[in-house]
Amino acid sequence: MMSSEPEFVPDGSVTTPKGFVAGSAYAGIKTYAKDKWDLGILLSEKACATVGVYTQNKFVSPSVTLSRQNVDAGAVRGLVVSSGIANTGVGAQGMADAKETVAIAAAHAGLEPGEMIIGTTGVIGVELPMALIRSGIPNIEVGRDGGERFARAILTTDRAPKSAAVRFELGGKTVTIGGCAKGSGMIHPNMATMLVYLTTDASVERDVLSAALTDVVDDTFNMVDIDGDVSTNDMVVLFANGEAGNKPAVAGSAEARALTEALAVLCRFLCVELMRDAEGSSKIFTVRVEGARTREDARLAARAVASSTLVKAAIHGSDPNWGRAIAAVGYSGAEVDVDKVSFFINDVAIMEAGTPISFHREAVIAIMNNPEVSLTVKLGIGDGAATAWGCELTEEYVQFNSAYTT
Amino acid sequence: MMSSEPEFVPDGSVTTPKGFVAGSAYAGIKTYAKDKWDLGILLSEKACATVGVYTQNKFVSPSVTLSRQNVDAGAVRGLVVSSGIANTGVGAQGMADAKETVAIAAAHAGLEPGEMIIGTTGVIGVELPMALIRSGIPNIEVGRDGGERFARAILTTDRAPKSAAVRFELGGKTVTIGGCAKGSGMIHPNMATMLVYLTTDASVERDVLSAALTDVVDDTFNMVDIDGDVSTNDMVVLFANGEAGNKPAVAGSAEARALTEALAVLCRFLCVELMRDAEGSSKIFTVRVEGARTREDARLAARAVASSTLVKAAIHGSDPNWGRAIAAVGYSGAEVDVDKVSFFINDVAIMEAGTPISFHREAVIAIMNNPEVSLTVKLGIGDGAATAWGCELTEEYVQFNSAYTT
Repeated sequence: MMSSEPEFVPDGSVTTPKGFVAGSAYAGIKTYAKDKWDLGILLSEKACATVGVYTQNKFVSPSVTLSRQNVDAGAVRGLVVSSGIANTGVGAQGMADAKETVAIAAAHAGLEPGEMIIGTTGVIGVELPMALIRSGIPNIEVGRDGGERFARAILTTDRAPKSAAVRFELGGKTVTIGGCAKGSGMIHPNMATMLVYLTTDASVERDVLSAALTDVVDDTFNMVDIDGDVSTNDMVVLFANGEAGNKPAVAGSAEARALTEALAVLCRFLCVELMRDAEGSSKIFTVRVEGARTREDARLAARAVASSTLVKAAIHGSDPNWGRAIAAVGYSGAEVDVDKVSFFINDVAIMEAGTPISFHREAVIAIMNNPEVSLTVKLGIGDGAATAWGCELTEEYVQFNSAYTT
Repeated sequence: MMSSEPEFVPDGSVTTPKGFVAGSAYAGIKTYAKDKWDLGILLSEKACATVGVYTQNKFVSPSVTLSRQNVDAGAVRGLVVSSGIANTGVGAQGMADAKETVAIAAAHAGLEPGEMIIGTTGVIGVELPMALIRSGIPNIEVGRDGGERFARAILTTDRAPKSAAVRFELGGKTVTIGGCAKGSGMIHPNMATMLVYLTTDASVERDVLSAALTDVVDDTFNMVDIDGDVSTNDMVVLFANGEAGNKPAVAGSAEARALTEALAVLCRFLCVELMRDAEGSSKIFTVRVEGARTREDARLAARAVASSTLVKAAIHGSDPNWGRAIAAVGYSGAEVDVDKVSFFINDVAIMEAGTPISFHREAVIAIMNNPEVSLTVKLGIGDGAATAWGCELTEEYVQFNSAYTT
């Protein structure tokens, strides 16, 4: 037995894997939530392989640009985060402030600047308060028990921190993957930035690590939709330090597959936590697409349904309005043969082979009144499958997001 | 002087151009609005050139499929419409019912079935009530004063009919273009179907007519966004019967350009009327993008801003949250040089050359409290320009669209 099923570690976090330390401080940046940390540092005690995926938005934060450059250079083993201000849309000052923040944090941690990256989230168009950051970073004390405090330091208006870790056997050794996430929900008063930081003590070749992260993010965080907008500051970064002592997982190996699957288990959990935390939403839904011509077609169709304003409103009202979901599949860009499409709400068939079938409306409404609803579309023309997550559209969401920025 | 500026005709409609007649009847299909017509016929008294553009949704209504086939065959000069049921998602019965409805209407109008098309709008997944349609169509009396009644027959939950006509000189003759539109607003309980019917007594070569319609629709009805969803039944059809007696407008001529511009004037007017009529919305906004690398880039960027849930919520709250608009440009797919972007709310500069500039927040909020708001993005890297229209996202929209289908 080379590997085992991943199991969740109670109270798991980014510091659950061996050799990672983290900490936080309050610098006064996140003034709307004074009881929350707004600076954090996460470090691997030893050198590690680090890979990332980043927002595709062309108005990218200099924090993301600098982090990408440093990750690509290959020496990164630390991260500083600041919540409350996005460091986006501030002209040339943005890169200068990102570099200075990284330099201060690296010096505090005893690292070179090229060994650190930076994540920022919050209001767009306001410069980072460097005086607060300069005085705040030296107050960060990192430790093996710092994962939970770090997870709180990346939040903006999230209702709760979102941390977890999974453990499994890999090549005869016990390895752990930890992670924390923030804010797929729309963040008042600005874009919903998604920050996800993942750590593992597994020994993994960098190429395997990169492929695993891209693959898992495409199936998880890229399939989460709350309001359809893409933030300027999104990033998902995975650190792997090899402290578990397993034989390095190489490309194409059973170990590489096991690691990817364990990472997917953790990321699916964090996705659901992100959806549950979305502002003004108490009900989430999954959209499962099967039988698509390709996996990419399945993703397109699932995302289109999950991000449809009309589907979200129907979920809110427990309205079995399957026409909206079917129409979203129709404009998704996925290949569709109308006469082969079937549609289910939970396990109740609503349409089969392109023709609606009678269903007990009150029973389906009762199902839809549950806090989690499952929609399944079977396209019947291939083997492509994907799952997307969405959340209801509520009156409270509109109230929350139409309030003044100040 | 070969042509003149188009002027709006008071109480203009699809029967304002010479040689068009229309009428309506109530058949009992649109049961939720008993005082509104639910069947209509529009005819050119003589043969005419007819062109159309249709929904790209793969779950297309058989009504659209049949109409496209007939238009492409080249003999169409009449239209029957039925509102209340979409004739979509009902399997093979949909095409059979579309054909029968066209045959009944053609017989009533003294035409061949191949000379007519059909538009349907309303609930998805319910078969057309053919008994009501068979008994209703013979009650339709068409006349030169029937334009307004026809415009009411295509409505579902629209608040008011939307008709207009423009008149201008073309090649020494007075020509008229009339039109009516329904429902870019989300139509309870199903998709927002956009039906637009346009008539002109101008003599125009079919290729010129087709190019003019495609060009104008790309700049008008395709730039209207209320909830981002694309209906299964959308269609825009233009009939041209040559009754004005002008020399036929040929490709590349000044007359072709004048006709296209007059059509654009009419369609822009109908677009704004559609936005004003959107359910649960009292405030509309335009997004003007200039300086894009290409016209298509400008369209992408303008549509992304107009359809952003977060921008719509900010418009509702009169919140000058420019970060949301800029971020939407960033993920639109349009080419962007961050350091060259400027942004304006009405004529107040909010960002110039990628850097936010101080603005009087209370003054901008006061501007945004007007019922119509203008957002302008200047990308500074080319000559591409486009305008999109959006409407606010309100609590009422959510209430309206989360109610049960029944």
